[in-house]
Amino acid sequence: MSTTALRPEELLQEEQTPEPIRKVSIIVSKGTFEGIYPGLIMANGARMEGIEANVFFTFFGMDAITKQKMDRVKVATVGNPALGLPAWLGIIPGMSTFVTRRMAKKMEALDIPPIPEFIQLIADSGAKLYACKASVDMFGLEQEDFVDTLEGILTVGEFYERAAGGQIIFT
Amino acid sequence: MSTTALRPEELLQEEQTPEPIRKVSIIVSKGTFEGIYPGLIMANGARMEGIEANVFFTFFGMDAITKQKMDRVKVATVGNPALGLPAWLGIIPGMSTFVTRRMAKKMEALDIPPIPEFIQLIADSGAKLYACKASVDMFGLEQEDFVDTLEGILTVGEFYERAAGGQIIFT
Amino acid sequence: MSTTALRPEELLQEEQTPEPIRKVSIIVSKGTFEGIYPGLIMANGARMEGIEANVFFTFFGMDAITKQKMDRVKVATVGNPALGLPAWLGIIPGMSTFVTRRMAKKMEALDIPPIPEFIQLIADSGAKLYACKASVDMFGLEQEDFVDTLEGILTVGEFYERAAGGQIIFT
Repeated sequence: MSTTALRPEELLQEEQTPEPIRKVSIIVSKGTFEGIYPGLIMANGARMEGIEANVFFTFFGMDAITKQKMDRVKVATVGNPALGLPAWLGIIPGMSTFVTRRMAKKMEALDIPPIPEFIQLIADSGAKLYACKASVDMFGLEQEDFVDTLEGILTVGEFYERAAGGQIIFT
Repeated sequence: MSTTALRPEELLQEEQTPEPIRKVSIIVSKGTFEGIYPGLIMANGARMEGIEANVFFTFFGMDAITKQKMDRVKVATVGNPALGLPAWLGIIPGMSTFVTRRMAKKMEALDIPPIPEFIQLIADSGAKLYACKASVDMFGLEQEDFVDTLEGILTVGEFYERAAGGQIIFT
Repeated sequence: MSTTALRPEELLQEEQTPEPIRKVSIIVSKGTFEGIYPGLIMANGARMEGIEANVFFTFFGMDAITKQKMDRVKVATVGNPALGLPAWLGIIPGMSTFVTRRMAKKMEALDIPPIPEFIQLIADSGAKLYACKASVDMFGLEQEDFVDTLEGILTVGEFYERAAGGQIIFT
């Protein structure tokens, strides 16, 4: 282009192929198996496409990056009629563990790792992991309670700063 | 405008009226009545405004577009204290069906159709429906298990490509 | 502007520091304690940074701005294995109230107010509060059922208009 102005057909083309997504900032707010995985899968999928990814863990979602809890995350067997379990069956002790194990097996068959390994994989791929300061304070946690790959503890304002120029996805 | 530069007052105006939303890419991840409808209502609302809409069904959200399940989606009567039901009442067999029927009636009165018809309406309005590849594999589903209006099965990376230039809304 | 082109180093700089987020439009769709707070905390955090904030209440999320319900919002003690309660314990009458009280105390210690005061604080900070028209009609509510700080009742299309130029965050 020797002249700087875009010609009409170029402008049109620009509208047809929008600028690709360069960054996603994913918030993981739930502490169930089915609440945590979608955010992790979306973060991993972003990194595989070369998209910058921040993952911000808040409320019960912090269980995914808390050393003591990350390998004990379970499927909610009550409150989810989509499971096809009668509600009264869902409250039987051990049912949640049973359903979780079955689902984890299906994921393993698809090369989707258990949460602790998945968190490590995502961090290794270059995604940045953050915990929400208000939640950390509320649950009385310390930096050492979290995985070593935690990049930092952020206020909501700091999160918005890092999310600038990308998409915020609350899961 | 004979000169190409914007005058200060035009710049100001531009800030006051931001560019309208042109595209939304809505992710439906939950398989309950109250988990599926918000995404569908937002997709329908987008199309009514001429906004491009992609709807990406993942995890239990796929129930909304699975032939065998789409007309059996239920309200979660446990795990939602906002319903005002005591938790022990929520587990009584049939309670979920009862509450779902009541809510569906209220929706019908507002011309919000049952899920199968709503999916058809949204597809007819030009929204594109997609299933998430990882979830399809995990639940062992095939293309023929889904409604005929399904546009395709996408990886997360392909979803991000189609979502470029719009808003991602995870529901 | 006599020379229209940006020099390469200016283009680079622009990529390194993306434009800050100017507006967030947060949708609150759940009626539980842990479903409502994240949206309010994100709205409050936005205003503290000078970011424009719209909060759009839909489905059970409307409980947060309904005079009769806003001070009775509870933690879901079933359907959330992250709480660490056995599922059968979660259905015991009073358990939800008990857990809610404990969590509210922790929040108070962090200067995060109860929902009614938090809603007032957010409105006073300049955030705009809206209820979703379809939900209002479905639940048979009227303008007077809501807090006085409610800015209005919007269709989904009107919501998209107000959300233009910002981030949509569905919680």
